[in-house]
Amino acid sequence: MTITLYDIPSTVPGSAFSPNVFKTRMALNYKGLSHKTEWVEFPNIAPRMKELGASPTEGMQYTVPVIHDHSTGKIISDSLDIAQYLDETYPDTPRLLPSGPGIAAIFESFFLPSIMPLPKLMQLPEFPKLNPASHAFFRKSREEWGKCKLEDLLPPGPEREKCWLKVKQGLDKVAGLLDKNGKDKPFVLGEQITYAEFIMAGWLVWVKIISEEDWAPISTWNDGRWEKLLQMTEKYRTIC
Amino acid sequence: MTITLYDIPSTVPGSAFSPNVFKTRMALNYKGLSHKTEWVEFPNIAPRMKELGASPTEGMQYTVPVIHDHSTGKIISDSLDIAQYLDETYPDTPRLLPSGPGIAAIFESFFLPSIMPLPKLMQLPEFPKLNPASHAFFRKSREEWGKCKLEDLLPPGPEREKCWLKVKQGLDKVAGLLDKNGKDKPFVLGEQITYAEFIMAGWLVWVKIISEEDWAPISTWNDGRWEKLLQMTEKYRTIC
Repeated sequence: MTITLYDIPSTVPGSAFSPNVFKTRMALNYKGLSHKTEWVEFPNIAPRMKELGASPTEGMQYTVPVIHDHSTGKIISDSLDIAQYLDETYPDTPRLLPSGPGIAAIFESFFLPSIMPLPKLMQLPEFPKLNPASHAFFRKSREEWGKCKLEDLLPPGPEREKCWLKVKQGLDKVAGLLDKNGKDKPFVLGEQITYAEFIMAGWLVWVKIISEEDWAPISTWNDGRWEKLLQMTEKYRTIC
Repeated sequence: MTITLYDIPSTVPGSAFSPNVFKTRMALNYKGLSHKTEWVEFPNIAPRMKELGASPTEGMQYTVPVIHDHSTGKIISDSLDIAQYLDETYPDTPRLLPSGPGIAAIFESFFLPSIMPLPKLMQLPEFPKLNPASHAFFRKSREEWGKCKLEDLLPPGPEREKCWLKVKQGLDKVAGLLDKNGKDKPFVLGEQITYAEFIMAGWLVWVKIISEEDWAPISTWNDGRWEKLLQMTEKYRTIC
């Protein structure tokens, strides 16, 4: 075992859920790098990461994914920085960022706003998928962020439907732009899968794991493109 | 002469100004494809393009750039479609879209909102750079779009300053993401110049041509990155 991947456990049997950690897990499996998951409940992330000496990410918060590469001693935070580190450290494995990290960062800066307000939609259904040890922390942080009770954060109803319509319009836009590549270049960067596919699949598999009910319509959008993306990347989501 | 490029003339000696046509001009020169510009004043674009049999672009409007490739008989509208056509039709020339058109379309869908409200800022200083034959058409279309007199569309003052600050923040963001590539991969797609550079240079050279005064501060932003981009792409803006 050479790399430890830190992730948050879930009540879904045999599954993780964190979209950002899934990006790193897919990156590790795609490269065929031996690794093992260490599970950390939400309230333990900051203390465990401080203890490890990991850097905080955006907004000076301690988050996952973090990897500890035991063969180099390096501890890396932030999914894109991890992808860059893996490409640089293991140059003989398939490249995640063949055109550099800049365009992957730009792709995510385009993709994530396109699927807004997906994160807001997922908080309420995510809650029961967490272990009780994470409940209080999750509720407090989400209620501060949403400025309302978790139960009032887009519960079923017309407002929630309107938000899903926005997600659909965003995915329509992404699909329309990617369709310019034609059938022989179905991937974001053309002919082969790269980290950009793992960015999209990380966010979308989150929906599928958390709520099959919410995923059902998405799986049919854009001629089944998103369902196919999840199928194509499934083998890289194996939990080690 | 094998390709005609349709563009809008300007009072700036020896210069064009249209940001979208500059993208195509840079593409043609980068590929070393022989071409000649045919100048069309604003009110004549739609009749001339209908006469040619060119397709309208977004919103069913007739716009430039349009190219007429006399060696194939093809008439192509829309700068990205033209880049794709040129890559496909002249595969032995340097590639504009080595990773396909999808990521270029996504890059532009990220870049253009990042530099908003640049188009609104440029309309008033652009007016005197047009020939009188385009004045009435330009004024009418911009006043309908801005819902105010052209002279009231961000004239000098605090509101205009605030808008430039937004442009600066957007360019800071783009520069920050591209900086992830490091010094050995300074371009959007890594090691070599592609159409993405022409997208940025097309929009930015527009500012420089229309208003040296507005360009002066931008040329210093992000360690002179944008000035360097214009210098590096200058040879591709030769007007044939």
